[in-house]
Amino acid sequence: MEQRLSLVTLGASDYERAKAFYEALGWSVTLEIEETAFFRANGCVLVLWARDKLAKDTGISDDGARWGGIVLAHNVRSREEVEEIIEQARANGGEIAREPAETFYGGYSGVFRDLDGHPWEVAHNPGFGLDDDGNIVLPVT
Amino acid sequence: MEQRLSLVTLGASDYERAKAFYEALGWSVTLEIEETAFFRANGCVLVLWARDKLAKDTGISDDGARWGGIVLAHNVRSREEVEEIIEQARANGGEIAREPAETFYGGYSGVFRDLDGHPWEVAHNPGFGLDDDGNIVLPVT
Repeated sequence: MEQRLSLVTLGASDYERAKAFYEALGWSVTLEIEETAFFRANGCVLVLWARDKLAKDTGISDDGARWGGIVLAHNVRSREEVEEIIEQARANGGEIAREPAETFYGGYSGVFRDLDGHPWEVAHNPGFGLDDDGNIVLPVT
Repeated sequence: MEQRLSLVTLGASDYERAKAFYEALGWSVTLEIEETAFFRANGCVLVLWARDKLAKDTGISDDGARWGGIVLAHNVRSREEVEEIIEQARANGGEIAREPAETFYGGYSGVFRDLDGHPWEVAHNPGFGLDDDGNIVLPVT
């Protein structure tokens, strides 16, 4: 198995509402096929799809939990950007799970949950630079 | 918010066991800091971290659910690769949520769940090519 992630699909209880939320944060749908939205990101693709279809297709019995142990992160270049994005999420109905604050690793971050509860940490981590494409540069140890 | 995904953190009930599972599938840890494993993928980074620490850090109250509506996907270049990876996951204790089979979109895929229940669809989708870096090429519509 190559060390690659192709897609991350977020199950949505209301597809149009979920799509509108990400669009309000500034994302643009790259491809839409039958109520499936593909957002090209850096390398991987973020997908929105009805959660009931996703569960059935995946072979998972869905108990409706809002969190199953996965957290997404979006790293930015400054503390100000952290605050801006958290405010944008809040203004669009996202729940703020953690208000922006200094982190234990010497950075600054906050966490919002999208309308289906999927959590995004928005972080400025001075220890992890971002290259020109916005990809994290892991420090060499 | 830029259209980027920086990290995907998978909460693990047993950090060393989770790390060994991904290593058995052929992944190599790029950076390890205090029981946190960072695997550089294509653009984004996959992270393993203790689930209880992740929940606390994210500000999420954890009810222990094994699925919260997120599915990861790993696209490959052939049906044979789908079968190989599913067998590798099975041999290492992964649960096969869906055995490899033709899909509704004209591809071929199977789904395994890692030892914490995080699901990976392993897919060959002839409609989505892969570039030289292994990134999905979305069709232009």
